[in-house]
Amino acid sequence: MRNDLVAALDIGGTKIAGALVDGGGRLLLRARRSTPAQEDAETVMAAVDAVLGELTGSLPWTRVTAVGIGSAGPVDASAGTVSPVNVPGWRDFPLVPRVARSVGGLPVTLVGDGVAMAAAEHWQGAARGCRNALCLVVSTGVGGGLVLDGRVHAGPTGNAGHIGHISVDLDGEPCPCGGRGCVERTASGPSIARRALANGWRPGPDGDTSAAAVAAAAHRGDPVAVASFERAAQALAAGIAATAALVEIETAVVGGGVSRAGEVLFAPLRRHLREYATLSFVRDTTVVPALTGTDAGLVGAAAAARLGGRGTAEAVVGGRPS
Amino acid sequence: MRNDLVAALDIGGTKIAGALVDGGGRLLLRARRSTPAQEDAETVMAAVDAVLGELTGSLPWTRVTAVGIGSAGPVDASAGTVSPVNVPGWRDFPLVPRVARSVGGLPVTLVGDGVAMAAAEHWQGAARGCRNALCLVVSTGVGGGLVLDGRVHAGPTGNAGHIGHISVDLDGEPCPCGGRGCVERTASGPSIARRALANGWRPGPDGDTSAAAVAAAAHRGDPVAVASFERAAQALAAGIAATAALVEIETAVVGGGVSRAGEVLFAPLRRHLREYATLSFVRDTTVVPALTGTDAGLVGAAAAARLGGRGTAEAVVGGRPS
Repeated sequence: MRNDLVAALDIGGTKIAGALVDGGGRLLLRARRSTPAQEDAETVMAAVDAVLGELTGSLPWTRVTAVGIGSAGPVDASAGTVSPVNVPGWRDFPLVPRVARSVGGLPVTLVGDGVAMAAAEHWQGAARGCRNALCLVVSTGVGGGLVLDGRVHAGPTGNAGHIGHISVDLDGEPCPCGGRGCVERTASGPSIARRALANGWRPGPDGDTSAAAVAAAAHRGDPVAVASFERAAQALAAGIAATAALVEIETAVVGGGVSRAGEVLFAPLRRHLREYATLSFVRDTTVVPALTGTDAGLVGAAAAARLGGRGTAEAVVGGRPS
Repeated sequence: MRNDLVAALDIGGTKIAGALVDGGGRLLLRARRSTPAQEDAETVMAAVDAVLGELTGSLPWTRVTAVGIGSAGPVDASAGTVSPVNVPGWRDFPLVPRVARSVGGLPVTLVGDGVAMAAAEHWQGAARGCRNALCLVVSTGVGGGLVLDGRVHAGPTGNAGHIGHISVDLDGEPCPCGGRGCVERTASGPSIARRALANGWRPGPDGDTSAAAVAAAAHRGDPVAVASFERAAQALAAGIAATAALVEIETAVVGGGVSRAGEVLFAPLRRHLREYATLSFVRDTTVVPALTGTDAGLVGAAAAARLGGRGTAEAVVGGRPS
C-alpha cells in the first residue's frame, strides 16, 4: 500500500518526538514533548501518551498501519522493554505493550536509537544501496547500528552495532559502563572537550567548553584542540576497522553532533582507518558523513516499523545443514 | 537427499586434506598431501588435484552433489580466489574455477578457514543450536567465524569473523598485518611463548618453547607462564566482548591448539569477559571449548558446501523499506 502511513516515536533523554511518516520517508505530522527524565515511570509514559494522543487524534491516523519506536538504550526488543541510561525511572519498562495498548493493537517495532539511525541512513541517507554498513552516532555518547546483507541487523534484543562500548584500549580508562578503554570514553563529545581542557586548551570569552567549541578552535589551528580530535578519530578508526574485520562493511556513516566538526574529525579518521584496516577485505572501507540529520530518529523508527521484524533476528528463518 | 555426499577440501599452509562427507557429518573417505607451501602456484595446485583425484576416483563419488573449500586466508569468495599468507605462490589464485573444472562443474563453495570452523561448530559442535555465536581458532594465528540469525555469516568475501586482526590496544605493538594491537599479536600461541620468554620463563630440559610448554608450566603454577596466558585471555576477552556488542552473540566457542591449555586459558578468559562485557545485552555471553577437533576444517567445508551460498551475503535477498 503506497498510501499507508506509519507512526514513529523517537525517545531520548531530552525529548520525546513523534511523527506520521509516509512511504517516501516524509514526515507529515509532528508532535513533541520534553522528557521528564528524572520523574517516575508513569510520568514519563504520560509524556509518550501525550505525543501519541496528538498523532492518534489526527485525521490521517486512519491510514497508519504500524508503529516504530527508536529509543535510547539499552532496549530489549525481544521483551519489549527499555531501560534508557538517562531515564532512571524506566528500568525494564514495558514500552511496547503500553504503546500497543494506546494504538489499538497495531504492530509495534522497537529498536535502539543507534539501530534507528542506521535504518534511517539505509533508507534515506548515506548508506542507501549499501549491502553492508556501520552507521555511527557520535554525540554525548557513541552509538551505532549495522546493515548486513542489505538489511538492518538489529540483533535479538535490538542493540547490535553498539560500537561505543567496544574496548579499543584494553588497559585504558574505566568507562561508566563498567568496561575500560571503550570507544565512547575517547571519542564522545564530552571526552573530546575533557581531554582538550586537561591538556591546556582554554575556551574563549563566552566560556563555551563544548566539543563544538573545541572543533572551532581546531579549525583555527589550535594544536591541543586538533590533537583531541585526532585521538577521538583514532579510537573511532580502530572501532570501525574492528567492525569491518568482523562483519565486512563497505562504508561507515558517521553522524551525530560531533560529526559536524567536519574535516577536523573526518581527515584524521580516514587516515587512522588506513592504519587499522589493512587486510585485503577491509582496506577499501570508506567513511562518509550521515545525511539524515536531526530527524534520523523518527525516519529510522519509521523504517523499523516498515521492516517490522524483518530487520531483526527473530523473523529470519535460520538455515543449517542437515 | 539423505543419501548424497559432499566433497570437502581443507587447505592450510602445512597440509591439504580432502574427504567425502555424508549428511550426518561423517567422513567416509580421506585424502591428504603436504602443502608445497614454498613452491610455485601450479605445484601447489597439483597437490590439490592429487587429493581431488583420490576423491573423484572413488566409488562413492557418484553420490557427490557439491564441493566445499575452507582455505587459509585471506580468501575472496566473491572472486573465487585465495591468497593464503603462508603460501606465497598463491596470490589471487583462482582456486574455485580450477576445482570446478576438476569436478565436472559441480557447485563449489569457498570460505575462509575461520568461517569453516564456525560452520563445523554450528553443525556438529559447541555452537549447535545457537542463533548467534562467534567461533575462534587460537593457534599459530587467531581466526574466527560468525553465526548470525541461526546461519553461518561468511560476509561478501568469506572472511567475516576475523577477530585476530581487530585492535584491542590502539597504541599497541605493530602487527605483521600492518595494524597495531591486534588480538592475534597478544593471544596467538607464538605470542604467548614469546611473552613468557621475554619475561623470564625458561623451557625445561627438552628445550620446548612452544605455547604448549608454557601451558604446562602454567599448570604447574609458574607465575610468568600464568601471566602470559592471563594477558592472552585479556585480549581475547576484549575481542569477544567487542563482537558481542557489535552483533549480539550468545556464546564464544574457542578452539585451536592454544585452547587445549584448558583452564589456564579459559578461567582468566571468563573472568576478563565479565570485565569487558558489561552491558545488559552482552553480559550473559558464555565461553566454551570447541568440540570438532582436528577435522573441523573438513567438517566445516562440508557444511559450507551444504549451505551453498546460503551462508553468504550474495544469496540473501535484501529487504529495505520502500
